[in-house]
Amino acid sequence: MSRTTVKRHPERGVYERETIDAILDEALVCHLGFVVDGQPFVIPTIHARVGDRLYIHGSPASRMLKTLADGVDVCVTATLVDGVVFARSWFHHSLNYRSAMVLGRARTVVDPEEKEQALAAVVEHIAAGRSDDSRWPSAKELRTTEVLALEISEASAKVRTGPPKDAGEDLELPVWAGVLPLALVPGAPVADEHVPPGLEEPRYVAAYTRP
Amino acid sequence: MSRTTVKRHPERGVYERETIDAILDEALVCHLGFVVDGQPFVIPTIHARVGDRLYIHGSPASRMLKTLADGVDVCVTATLVDGVVFARSWFHHSLNYRSAMVLGRARTVVDPEEKEQALAAVVEHIAAGRSDDSRWPSAKELRTTEVLALEISEASAKVRTGPPKDAGEDLELPVWAGVLPLALVPGAPVADEHVPPGLEEPRYVAAYTRP
Repeated sequence: MSRTTVKRHPERGVYERETIDAILDEALVCHLGFVVDGQPFVIPTIHARVGDRLYIHGSPASRMLKTLADGVDVCVTATLVDGVVFARSWFHHSLNYRSAMVLGRARTVVDPEEKEQALAAVVEHIAAGRSDDSRWPSAKELRTTEVLALEISEASAKVRTGPPKDAGEDLELPVWAGVLPLALVPGAPVADEHVPPGLEEPRYVAAYTRP
Repeated sequence: MSRTTVKRHPERGVYERETIDAILDEALVCHLGFVVDGQPFVIPTIHARVGDRLYIHGSPASRMLKTLADGVDVCVTATLVDGVVFARSWFHHSLNYRSAMVLGRARTVVDPEEKEQALAAVVEHIAAGRSDDSRWPSAKELRTTEVLALEISEASAKVRTGPPKDAGEDLELPVWAGVLPLALVPGAPVADEHVPPGLEEPRYVAAYTRP
């Protein structure tokens, strides 16, 4: 049984790359797990997928990780919460969600060209079209930004959908049960005070969606 | 410097328990990090705070953790994404977010009474008022549910708010910049097919909010 086989609730396990990629692409943030002196750390950060490779905006972890020039074992998990599952019993309460986990040895991106491409992907991950609309990094900015690269070779997804799973006598209980959908929804954009009057927000801001 | 001192972007570090608790309470899910054979794993799960203690619905990790009767070093991180920060430069793109991290040695909750109280807290974490409205667990359900307990003694929060931090000449660029607020917003409740006609959803479903 591989390290990414879903053991608890195996019916929720999904191993198709298409599903895994879609979750990684839709999730705005991921949680990066790594180990320092036996202690696990889990840090939220931004990522971007480029084909079979995941780039992780590694700054938050860079101080802890920088001594590991030969790479570091990580776990990257991205989770989308789709709804609250209200069951008649405590036991069957749950969430509808889609989660992708990628395990492997991450390396620090050193090559400036790869780093620039990775950062472009991160900006595009935030909003498609934004990298061409905004100022590219200077050499100094490139140097001071840490990026990790992780091959997507050992990965799995876990997905729960649908109504609560109450059974038997519980179905007769006079208790409301069902799903409350949840979604990360944009509000009204707030322009920075230095934006000149008449400069409207771009379409990917005004009509923001995740892929 | 402690393990929970925020090193990268220290200005974002917050150590008041009030802030940490508010993030833990508002976040519907957390990410639980633990180590097996040197490999970190990060798994999304539901949690609940009871005073100085965090209970973690440990089922997803239980298979991996069950051999560790004396406790397991974990990191629990809960993250709320509050908005996308569009800067004029790639470099200053960011997210507004609030994140809380709790480190420590988690123990498996064995005592049935504590376990029941912990699960009540988890159900209340999902929606305040729900635990009394739904069926309590049977002895068998209690036995087959794994719960971890973690004292909130080593913890920190990281918070970013406000506009992009572009400076100098970048402020003159003809690029829209600002914040796009994001929030986890409920949709219309979907009743389960067995809910009898006329049984309306409770207030905590119809007007769902996070604390």
